[in-house]
Amino acid sequence: MNSPTSHVRELAERITEADATIAVAESLTGGQLSSALAAAPDASDWFRGGLVAYASEVKFDVLGVTPGPVVTAQCAEEMATGIERLLTARVGVGVTGVGGPDPEEGRPAGTVFAAVSTQGRVVVREWHFDGEPEEVLEQTIDAIIRLVQAELSQPHAAADTPGERS
Amino acid sequence: MNSPTSHVRELAERITEADATIAVAESLTGGQLSSALAAAPDASDWFRGGLVAYASEVKFDVLGVTPGPVVTAQCAEEMATGIERLLTARVGVGVTGVGGPDPEEGRPAGTVFAAVSTQGRVVVREWHFDGEPEEVLEQTIDAIIRLVQAELSQPHAAADTPGERS
Repeated sequence: MNSPTSHVRELAERITEADATIAVAESLTGGQLSSALAAAPDASDWFRGGLVAYASEVKFDVLGVTPGPVVTAQCAEEMATGIERLLTARVGVGVTGVGGPDPEEGRPAGTVFAAVSTQGRVVVREWHFDGEPEEVLEQTIDAIIRLVQAELSQPHAAADTPGERS
Repeated sequence: MNSPTSHVRELAERITEADATIAVAESLTGGQLSSALAAAPDASDWFRGGLVAYASEVKFDVLGVTPGPVVTAQCAEEMATGIERLLTARVGVGVTGVGGPDPEEGRPAGTVFAAVSTQGRVVVREWHFDGEPEEVLEQTIDAIIRLVQAELSQPHAAADTPGERS
């Protein structure tokens, strides 16, 4: 089994091959997703940066997320498209959820929504992870890195196919 | 000796006492400063969020940093005031530097500039840390957390005294 670090390394290779750039907007992970990418080989060539949109108003005011509940697929999608635009990256990632231990917005701890936006194409995922908050965050980061890698492997990854969701 | 985690805990208490909010703009630390704050007790009460301004253009375009060299005291100061404004926090923190192992902009690895902006008052520090990149980042985060804590302990921390630098 590969470690999260090796997944980040594979993602770095894939991004470099695709000559892409990436930016992330994260909430429950609090900066750990950015840290993981920044620590990857040659990150300065393709990692634009990230916004830790911890307070809900930061999501609304800086990323243009529709005001309302933030533990939703729509919020993740708007975080991804918002950061793609704000940091002028080819790939935007958004992640929001409940790290725990308490539920939020009626959603149990471990509920995570993630989205990857690539020039008009957006994929959104809903995950439910078990464990302590720290374990939820680790699983979240690992799952997002795999999701971005899968998206960059799609033949349509860079195509202009607006609004596709899965 | 206290651990970085206990320093974060003390900072969280100080921010809560001061009824302040904080936002950070970080470069070499890549998200680790945000992560450290987000992991503190009751962070959602006072941590607005952060910008990982990894690419120089993100510093210029999103934070309003003056285009030019980025491993400078001026860049740290403009990152701090820029993030204070962007995320509407009472305290803004900016940090830029050279994690290493290679020098950047003619500055040796371990050179770090940090600034704390509090409603018109700005303090800027230049540090030189030894060690591997990971050790430089750890020392940077620990030093920033102490600097913010010291600033919040100043009687003039919330006073409107523009442009003070040390």
